[in-house]
Formats: sequence, C-alpha cells, structure tokens
Amino acid sequence: MQIDGRAYRTIWLDPEDGWSIRIIDQTKLPWALEIVRLTTATEAAHAIRAMLVRGAPLIGATAAYGLCLGLRVDPGTAAMEAAAAQLAATRPTAVNLRWALDRMLTVLRNTAPAERVAIAYAEAARIADEDVAQNQAIGRHGLGLIAAVARARPGSPVNVLTHCNAGWLATVDWGTAIAPIYAAHAAGIPVHVWVDETRPRNQGAALTAYELGKHGVAHTVVADNAGGHLMQHGKVDLAIVGADRVTRRGDVANKIGTYLKALAAQDTGVKFHVAVPSSSIDWTLADGIAEIPIEERAEAEVATLTGRAPDGTVTTVRVVPDGSAAANPAFDVTPARLVTGFITERGCCPASAAGLAGLFPEH
Amino acid sequence: MQIDGRAYRTIWLDPEDGWSIRIIDQTKLPWALEIVRLTTATEAAHAIRAMLVRGAPLIGATAAYGLCLGLRVDPGTAAMEAAAAQLAATRPTAVNLRWALDRMLTVLRNTAPAERVAIAYAEAARIADEDVAQNQAIGRHGLGLIAAVARARPGSPVNVLTHCNAGWLATVDWGTAIAPIYAAHAAGIPVHVWVDETRPRNQGAALTAYELGKHGVAHTVVADNAGGHLMQHGKVDLAIVGADRVTRRGDVANKIGTYLKALAAQDTGVKFHVAVPSSSIDWTLADGIAEIPIEERAEAEVATLTGRAPDGTVTTVRVVPDGSAAANPAFDVTPARLVTGFITERGCCPASAAGLAGLFPEH
Repeated sequence: MQIDGRAYRTIWLDPEDGWSIRIIDQTKLPWALEIVRLTTATEAAHAIRAMLVRGAPLIGATAAYGLCLGLRVDPGTAAMEAAAAQLAATRPTAVNLRWALDRMLTVLRNTAPAERVAIAYAEAARIADEDVAQNQAIGRHGLGLIAAVARARPGSPVNVLTHCNAGWLATVDWGTAIAPIYAAHAAGIPVHVWVDETRPRNQGAALTAYELGKHGVAHTVVADNAGGHLMQHGKVDLAIVGADRVTRRGDVANKIGTYLKALAAQDTGVKFHVAVPSSSIDWTLADGIAEIPIEERAEAEVATLTGRAPDGTVTTVRVVPDGSAAANPAFDVTPARLVTGFITERGCCPASAAGLAGLFPEH
Repeated sequence: MQIDGRAYRTIWLDPEDGWSIRIIDQTKLPWALEIVRLTTATEAAHAIRAMLVRGAPLIGATAAYGLCLGLRVDPGTAAMEAAAAQLAATRPTAVNLRWALDRMLTVLRNTAPAERVAIAYAEAARIADEDVAQNQAIGRHGLGLIAAVARARPGSPVNVLTHCNAGWLATVDWGTAIAPIYAAHAAGIPVHVWVDETRPRNQGAALTAYELGKHGVAHTVVADNAGGHLMQHGKVDLAIVGADRVTRRGDVANKIGTYLKALAAQDTGVKFHVAVPSSSIDWTLADGIAEIPIEERAEAEVATLTGRAPDGTVTTVRVVPDGSAAANPAFDVTPARLVTGFITERGCCPASAAGLAGLFPEH
C-alpha cells in the first residue's frame, strides 16, 4: 500500500544485499516511518516480541524470514530447530507464527543443510506473496458485504467499525479486516471507518487511523468504550475485525476488547464479520475460551502511553498512579455464536464448524 | 475520605471566609492535589464544564453552591434565574445538576431577595450533607452483596469490577459504586477492585485507582477492553457502577462503555449492579436510549492524553495521527434488562419500573 505516494509492504528482502530483511518499525508509528534491518534470527524474534511487527499474518512472515536468517549462520538441523523454537516462543496467541514455522520446517527437514538457505528464502517469499494474494481475495469477498449496504442505502457512506489494526500493517500487504474497505474505496463506494483506539497499545489510533489516512479513507477515531453507543444509535452498518486464531468451530481470539464489540453487535442487530486467511485457523482446537492461550503482556503497556508532546518529541507518559498495579491480557475470545461470518480467501462462510469445513474440506 | 491521613470532602465552604467554595481540582489528579477556590457562579459553571468537578452527585452539589455565589452578587430574581440557567447549561446528561438547581429554586423563589443568600447556603449545605448520608446508606445496602460473595467463598478476596469513577471523588463523600467497597473494606472483608482505565478521560486510572490506593483498597487497573475477558474467566464476582441518570423504568446513562460491560456481565452470568442516590433518577423519562441527552465532548479528549513524563512533568501527548478526526460521546445507555439491580439509599431493588416505584412510592 501507499505511504505518501510510495508503495510499501510491511516486510521485504533488502534489495541491495539480497539477504537481510527490512521491516517498518510499527512501534514508531504514526509519528515516524522508520525502516529497521533484521540480520539474525534473534533480531527477528525481538522484532516480534517487542511488536516492531505485529498482526498475525505479519508475524508469521517475519518468523519465516527469521528462520532464513538463522540458517545463514548455521544451516545444521540442531541450529535450525533451535532457531524455530526461539521464534515460536515469542508470542503465544496468534497461530500464524506456528503455522509459518511448521510450513518452513516441513520443507527444510527434507532438505540437505547446504541447500537450506536458498530453499528457506524461496519458501518465506512464497509465504509473503501468498499472504498478499489471500488478503486481496479477502478484500474481493468482503467487498460484497459493503456493496450490499451501499446498494440498500445509496448516497450515504457505509459505516464500518473495526477494532485494533487488521489493515495492511498487520499483514504483508492489503490487510484482512481492512482489505474489503480498501476494495470498496477502490470501487468508488463511499465508506467511513469507526476506528477503535484499542488500548493499551493504541493500535487503532496509531496504526489503523494512520494507514487509512495515508490511503485517503474517511475515518473517525473513538475510544474503545464508544462502539456500543454508536451501534445503539444506528451509526454502524457492519463491524469487521481480524483474528489471531480461529478454532475449527469458529471461536475467535483477537485483540482484547473484540468480544465486547461482538456482544454489542449482537444486541443491536449489527452484522459482525471476522476476516481471516486460512493460516489463522487452528484446526486442532474447538473451544476457544478454554483452549487458546492468551498472552499476558507487560503492566507498563497499561500504565503508560506514548504520544507526541507539544514540543514535538515522542514521549511516554505514565497514566496510572504510583503504587497501583495493572494487568494486561492482550487478547480475548469471541464465541462463534456472536460472529455473523468469516471472510476468507476462499469466500465467506458462517461462523461454525460446518461453515469452515465447507470452505476448507481438506481439514 | 482520607488522602494521606487527612480527611477531605470533594467540596466545602471555606472555613476562613465562610462563603467561598473550595473544591479539589480533579483534572490535576492523580499527579497533584490542588485545591481551587470558587468565588462566582461563573467560576462554578466553569469548574463543572471543564470537569474540575465531575460525577453526577458532585456536580449537583457544585451547582447548588454556585447558585449561592451568584446570589451574593445579585439576589434579585432575574439574576438568580440567569445564574441557575448558566449552571444548568454546563452539562446535559447527569440529572442531579437539574435536580439540585430545581430544589434550590423551589426554596428560593418563595424567599425575599434579602434573605436568599443565607437560605441558599443552608440548602446547599443540606444537599451536600444529604449526599454524604445517602452514599453511606448505599454503602450499607451494597455491603450485603459483597458479603454474600465472601460468605460463599471464604478466604479469597471478592473481585469487583467498576467503570469510570463513582467513588468519593464523584460525590461529596463516600461515593456511590465504591461506597459498598469501602464498607466491605471497613468490615474486614477482603475485596479487590478491577479498575477500568475509562478512556477518554481515564477517570478509572486517574481517580478510582487514586482514591482506592489512598484508602488502602487492593485494586488492579485494566484497559477498558479487558472486562469481558476477565468475566469469561471467572475473575469478576460482581460489577458495580454508578449512573448519571436513571429513567423510571431503570435504563441507565453512565460513562461511555458501561453498556459493553453490562453486556459481558449478562453473557457470562456476572451480576451487574448500579449504585445511585435517588437524585440521579429522572422520573420524567422512560426510554433511556431514546430520551436521555448524551453529551458530545471535545475531540481533544480522545486525541490526547495526559500523564507524567519521565522528567516528572505532567504532559499532554497526542495519540491520534494529524488529520484524523475523533468523536467523543461521553455516556451511553444500558437498558434495564441488562442491570441486575439498583443499590439506593433506601435499599436494593430490581431494575424495573416496579422495582424503583416500590422503593420510591412518592414518585
């Protein structure tokens, strides 16, 4: 997608050296566009854990390239398995991380060490390119949902609420939840996005508002608390969010607070869609609340907040009194019964075991 | 209540001059305890509008004292009515503001101008003292709900979730939602409070965590997004919130985001109580979603956030990209069907027209 007229992906091979990996440091957005170079698996693991890159599809692609970097140092099997384990341990909730590493290892374990580096880079590039293609397909399939609202009410913009960032910054390109919005925008359908701020890390305000703004899509930032009120008063036509892990029966782990918006959507009759590539579906799990591991992140993410001070410097301020504890569960699980449907690269389906199995019969 | 060993109310008559009004400037908490002197009705109106004082009961008391300050300048009927109108126009949602002014005017309109100042100060003091007594009664009645959980599960703390600040800082003293917690704490019942951060103004972190910390009540700050997840996992025994206006059938206007927590409570079987003095009940309204006016506050409250920078200075940082719009509805309405019951100064009742009428048959 475009930033100030220049096309970017969120992760790419350095065109000069042909092996190091470039990423956008998302902890610096929206105040600075800083490109970081990753040269080792440890640097890639740090980028995932410290959330320089985040979003389930993007951390999958980053882990894949991280494994390439590890193999450059030591293509032996023991080192490869250790690098994969290091990368897998960075974050527990998004299943794409494990999916991408499993896919890499499946290829690499059957490859002689001397050939692994080239094979690994080729497979990582395929993972990245397939993510882009899948997200474009999600955009095409989701476009129909937005177009249907527009047809039913011509002349007024379609109001979509989203939570956290499931835009192109959460993927290699195009995004999951935001891909249909970009597709609608490209098709000339007037669309307006309610952007949840998404505390504690503010990915809605910092990332979704940033990328929508750079792309010229109308949007309004609201506090995470506001979505229910907007839905009660008819100001939301549909909600679209991404996911970090979906179980085979359709329970959805996504950024903390997603469950609350799904409840409000059900209570007010607003359709609530979850956009996911199939790499986010964990076919081994059924009950999301009982089975999906929920990452607990640092208290400091709740106790502090980063923004731009009046003098222009980016400053982290404490917002919780000294001596008060904070807790930071990073995800919650929305039961399938609250989800209208999934938007996947193969089309839309109901949020149920039968719905998902119908689109992905091979599982 | 106590701050560092000294007893405070949130509003009091200056003991030296006997007529000016002292308040705690709540926009400065938790980083500084600043006492502000109000000397005119206009200053009182500003204190309410700019939220130096906030919380439905406290803005009622402040409006009452603000009218006293106006009468000192001009006790004539035209000036009195103008001052009351100025104070009433400050904030639209909390009904206590209008309730307090109506109560003052009912007394003062039947009083000769020369006697109005003394009568007004006496009535404002009664409003303040009655608020304290009512909140103590709410504490006693709500204590039973907490004690019942403690009896059923001896030895482990009772986990109460609250939203925004309905503690002593929202009232003249004791609080509404937090009064039962203080009563439980005083009774030796171990209680732990989940404090929602309550964006955009962060009154949970800035005010509720502050006052609980000063009083020695165990608590943990969480993002507004986290409450549903905590309830799903059995970490919340009951939720207690305050209200800015309750309709006669039990719909509840309260700080934006309350509705989302009530939905999660219903979905997870957690009891959801609303603590209100009768001055917060608007007997003229039935349908809260359709009829209660919802204040839209400044975009800047969403786009910025104030905290303590590493150098110790209190700094306001921008958290929304330049060029992105923000919207700031300050309240939402929770339908009565989601409310387990009310805790009032006369006892507890179901959230229904019959329940409220049973406790307050005079209306």
